[in-house]
Amino acid sequence: MSLANRDLVTLDDFSNAEIDGLFSLANIMNKSIDKQSSICKNKIMASLFFEPSTRTRLSFETAMHRLGGHVISAVDIGSTSLAKGESIADMARVLGSYADIIVIRHPWEGAAKVVADYADVPVINAGDGGHEHPTQTLCDLYTIKSERHSIEGLRIALCGDLKYGRTIHSLAYALARFGANILFQSYPGLEIPEHVLRKLITNYNGTLKMSEDLKQETQKGVFPLNSIYITPGSPHQLAMMPDVNIQIETEANVDALYVTRLQKERSSNNLNKHEEEDNYPVVDKKLLREKRFKQTLVMHPLPRVDELACEVDADPRSMYFKQAAFGVPVRMALISLLLGGSNITTNEDISRLSKPKQMIYKRNSGLKCHNPLCVSNQDSEIKYIKPEFKIISIGPLRLSCIYCEHENNPLYIASSLWHEGGLKYKKYHSANSHLIKRIKPENLILFESAISAQSQGFEPSNYVGTSHSTLNIKR
Amino acid sequence: MSLANRDLVTLDDFSNAEIDGLFSLANIMNKSIDKQSSICKNKIMASLFFEPSTRTRLSFETAMHRLGGHVISAVDIGSTSLAKGESIADMARVLGSYADIIVIRHPWEGAAKVVADYADVPVINAGDGGHEHPTQTLCDLYTIKSERHSIEGLRIALCGDLKYGRTIHSLAYALARFGANILFQSYPGLEIPEHVLRKLITNYNGTLKMSEDLKQETQKGVFPLNSIYITPGSPHQLAMMPDVNIQIETEANVDALYVTRLQKERSSNNLNKHEEEDNYPVVDKKLLREKRFKQTLVMHPLPRVDELACEVDADPRSMYFKQAAFGVPVRMALISLLLGGSNITTNEDISRLSKPKQMIYKRNSGLKCHNPLCVSNQDSEIKYIKPEFKIISIGPLRLSCIYCEHENNPLYIASSLWHEGGLKYKKYHSANSHLIKRIKPENLILFESAISAQSQGFEPSNYVGTSHSTLNIKR
Amino acid sequence: MSLANRDLVTLDDFSNAEIDGLFSLANIMNKSIDKQSSICKNKIMASLFFEPSTRTRLSFETAMHRLGGHVISAVDIGSTSLAKGESIADMARVLGSYADIIVIRHPWEGAAKVVADYADVPVINAGDGGHEHPTQTLCDLYTIKSERHSIEGLRIALCGDLKYGRTIHSLAYALARFGANILFQSYPGLEIPEHVLRKLITNYNGTLKMSEDLKQETQKGVFPLNSIYITPGSPHQLAMMPDVNIQIETEANVDALYVTRLQKERSSNNLNKHEEEDNYPVVDKKLLREKRFKQTLVMHPLPRVDELACEVDADPRSMYFKQAAFGVPVRMALISLLLGGSNITTNEDISRLSKPKQMIYKRNSGLKCHNPLCVSNQDSEIKYIKPEFKIISIGPLRLSCIYCEHENNPLYIASSLWHEGGLKYKKYHSANSHLIKRIKPENLILFESAISAQSQGFEPSNYVGTSHSTLNIKR
Repeated sequence: MSLANRDLVTLDDFSNAEIDGLFSLANIMNKSIDKQSSICKNKIMASLFFEPSTRTRLSFETAMHRLGGHVISAVDIGSTSLAKGESIADMARVLGSYADIIVIRHPWEGAAKVVADYADVPVINAGDGGHEHPTQTLCDLYTIKSERHSIEGLRIALCGDLKYGRTIHSLAYALARFGANILFQSYPGLEIPEHVLRKLITNYNGTLKMSEDLKQETQKGVFPLNSIYITPGSPHQLAMMPDVNIQIETEANVDALYVTRLQKERSSNNLNKHEEEDNYPVVDKKLLREKRFKQTLVMHPLPRVDELACEVDADPRSMYFKQAAFGVPVRMALISLLLGGSNITTNEDISRLSKPKQMIYKRNSGLKCHNPLCVSNQDSEIKYIKPEFKIISIGPLRLSCIYCEHENNPLYIASSLWHEGGLKYKKYHSANSHLIKRIKPENLILFESAISAQSQGFEPSNYVGTSHSTLNIKR
Repeated sequence: MSLANRDLVTLDDFSNAEIDGLFSLANIMNKSIDKQSSICKNKIMASLFFEPSTRTRLSFETAMHRLGGHVISAVDIGSTSLAKGESIADMARVLGSYADIIVIRHPWEGAAKVVADYADVPVINAGDGGHEHPTQTLCDLYTIKSERHSIEGLRIALCGDLKYGRTIHSLAYALARFGANILFQSYPGLEIPEHVLRKLITNYNGTLKMSEDLKQETQKGVFPLNSIYITPGSPHQLAMMPDVNIQIETEANVDALYVTRLQKERSSNNLNKHEEEDNYPVVDKKLLREKRFKQTLVMHPLPRVDELACEVDADPRSMYFKQAAFGVPVRMALISLLLGGSNITTNEDISRLSKPKQMIYKRNSGLKCHNPLCVSNQDSEIKYIKPEFKIISIGPLRLSCIYCEHENNPLYIASSLWHEGGLKYKKYHSANSHLIKRIKPENLILFESAISAQSQGFEPSNYVGTSHSTLNIKR
Repeated sequence: MSLANRDLVTLDDFSNAEIDGLFSLANIMNKSIDKQSSICKNKIMASLFFEPSTRTRLSFETAMHRLGGHVISAVDIGSTSLAKGESIADMARVLGSYADIIVIRHPWEGAAKVVADYADVPVINAGDGGHEHPTQTLCDLYTIKSERHSIEGLRIALCGDLKYGRTIHSLAYALARFGANILFQSYPGLEIPEHVLRKLITNYNGTLKMSEDLKQETQKGVFPLNSIYITPGSPHQLAMMPDVNIQIETEANVDALYVTRLQKERSSNNLNKHEEEDNYPVVDKKLLREKRFKQTLVMHPLPRVDELACEVDADPRSMYFKQAAFGVPVRMALISLLLGGSNITTNEDISRLSKPKQMIYKRNSGLKCHNPLCVSNQDSEIKYIKPEFKIISIGPLRLSCIYCEHENNPLYIASSLWHEGGLKYKKYHSANSHLIKRIKPENLILFESAISAQSQGFEPSNYVGTSHSTLNIKR
């Protein structure tokens, strides 16, 4: 199976079988890393890093060099034509005509998708703001798989700043996709966002136990256990006898402990910064003496600051330097596949969970992404990007921006076929009225607000409700 | 014919035949761009960008990699030894001992010439302030030639900011050299500078129609037509029957429409910046519906901001992304020629217009370049650069700095042979007196001012006039 | 002899025979610099420059490319994970898992040693603050050797800013190691530091004539002669008949004149900066007309500012551009040796002066390096670096930090074997009491201060003296 000319913007772009194939190739790369130099000979990678990074950039560039290719590199947004007001799309088209593959890190969420949309060559997302960083997730998964052979059924604890850690969100989805159970052990105030938990249950069909049920038993550790995601079909105690066997569950072996640093640079909460820094817990020898950590892989995306004590470095359970080193073979495998230098050797192409097919809402009815960091809201980009949204569900109505995946839940709806559902001409209704199920998706018109609907010539129907009550229910 | 070890500081460094040869080579490069990797094997290019640029730098580096060579790169003036007060000449000598070819962009006008003077290897000017950017012009010409086969006799419209766009000035000269007619359609206040027009007529012998003649007919469009350069020997209506057939001329087909963005970073006029930005016209679908644009190549050096609407991107007349992509094969051809990896295959070496030979004024009589951005006026460089000037004409007396080509028109003259022209010892005269034609060029002494002449021991002759009236006439 | 997998942190890491072997290899490299491209094929060099440098970085990168290898590069501390608070050790471990060799420049003194300690690959120090820059010294030595065949017995004058010029200190040690005589001719107020002179005599056994003896004879030149280091066994007049033949000595031929610029960026003395700049002397044609400079190699590490006049550039004695150019073959030889691509062909492995073996003081008794720029004192590093010191001498007691080599002379001592030397339990003594010679080095405990000793449970013995008198004597 060839992955040539594909993009990797989010991990959802690859099926589980494709990821497994990539990992098999990474194994081969890793075994003879200095003998791969003919695979991408005469190919050029554009390495575009518009946000600080050493590790990621250098591991991509190392990977390309190990494959025998060339690298052109731009590392500072100030020294590029973007500073002159150029759009990302223009940059993508031009650099796509120079290089054979583009790797991009950009502070705007969804930027990598725009590059992929406009460049004629494969594009790899090396981090687009707080949105996605799929190759980090690939390295994380690969590390676990290398040590445990399969991810299915493992118990993985995610610890620390689960709110702003973009690697954590991507990893959670990926672990769920591959059938792992996840323990969320956040620093207070930095819990995993609700939308992440919601996506886990919606997309991967697992069960969630929230902190209310768990509190009394689990507040002892440095990282309180806030919630547990239990993969479908898991023979776990908790799944079978909820609320009874929590203690057994929380004391069971942890296969991997994934530690994250405080994402100071993404936090907007300036007031408590110093307090957070001072109290942020530390994974150290003492913590790892707990029985459930006896066989635990200690992981960290690096760079670390103080949350992972240096005294742990020599411990055989420490995986974080290995995890960083795996960045090279994993990215070699990825680059090689996208450039057509290698193929996936496995025949099976049945994903464990195939990518969910979603309706895209493209109608120009005034909807905009509410994320100020979304690429679709930037001055240089609005002139050509038109907002589009995936329809995640209609009861309740939930959309997500196709660029940054932020949720957008419009309050009002209408139908473009006025007779549909027996409605009067040009009436709009509350998004949580029963009418939403009577309008065919392709006829759906969505409005941000009553004012927006009215300015487009629609009038309230009897199914409008008050916007207040709607807000209370929906948000 | 070999171009090995030549420099490209200004486009004047190459004859028309050499440029045609370069374009033939670029055609070959373009046809099999990934099969040229043995041409510059083991060669090293120093890519020195002391001013922001993505496109130009990465296209040079791509070109070198496609030729199989290596690249060493410095992109920030702050992180280099120049920040420690080192001269450009020292940098050139050292980097010339490391690399096999140097590509330099520098904010000081004339900097590339200094690098070429002091480095032992070929040097390519990738932009020296507002002075020159010859490879951009090569790409522009190559794009037109690729689409129209010949440049001779074409009608090319240059639009927008014609004052600060360095690419525009170079392109105008190049188009005139190759026999094109040029329509200057500037944004009001950003007209093409007079010295550019003067150089066009002086060097390329064409005819110029100025806005006074054209005004009433041409003020309709978004870009008013200010002047037309008509190439010598052209069978154009306007050349044959001036002032009569203007309307025919302005409605005739345009072969290429070259759009430029507002050069905000070079404009010193801060007051009107916002106004200029808001009113700067836009090339869009509507404009291109005009009959004379039916077959027009729409070109732009990129990056664009708002002056070229995204809706035009899909139009088959849009050439700007192709133009950017041509940057790679054109630069491959150039690098390959200068490194001796390829030769020009054409036998003809008769340029259509051979490079004009000019007297150089080297005497140390206090003349300095008046351009504050000229490399010859920089603290770190004055210790070794002595000002020199090309004598463009003597009636009226006009010089241009050999570094930045800014004009310098000294007010007074003298002769180093005191008896020459029957003059008394050590007298100076007005530069616009008849005596200037009686002094042999090699004996000419030029003075910035009366004070300067007097401080060097000269006394006024009867042919001095008042400096006031001289100023009024000359400046 | 193989040097594979060795580090070059300070020049002391290599024996004289190894350096000679490296130079022989550099000769070979220099003769056919473009035919070495198979030596480091498929190898990757990480080029990490956390402090401004063009010359050094580009010459390393050129060297690696000439050897056929690849380069990954990071040039700005702001764009790296170090800005997120990552330790140098973590960076070293990760980059050591990407690249095959690391070249590092860093503002913290001793940083290169930390990288060498933690990376699994060879590490080359490309400058760690004011501490060391060993490859510059190798290029300096190589230049002299290329021109004079041997360094032994030569007379080398070091001129200008001898206080802050790190290249000067390293060069002085290296010249002494290879048996040269050194004339220190500093700008007033920027004399060579005492600790450098002390190290010269201690390690290389030469004789030193200080300015008091020389003053009257030598204050004439632009650079007054402050001191002369005379290599052991030298048949110099001055060594045999001190104080008599100074004039002969100071008028004898100088083999090389090594000029340095004012190290403005390291000087902390802001008040006198402008004065220093204005008065800093200039090596020019006039100076070089002195008889003793007739055959002198004029050297400079570059970049120069005004201390070396451009008029000297064309003089055949000028070596500085050659010296810069030698940076490439010397670094090629070094990289090739450390990567095992080449071996040293000489059989002799007897160094002229073998590296002195020194006791390391590792006990945690509160000693800290007093250099605020030392890597061991940085916030991100103190959590894992424990201070260690070389014991240079015990009478008087002198230590030097193993990272930055700054001196640290503790005031008090004790023994960990309480009975040793017949002492009472837990008593501390003055470091300059006779007891220091009765305590076995492995039992020695050292204290910064009386308070520190007491806080660790020690009481003063009769051999404590007053800290005042101790201070007066020792400091």
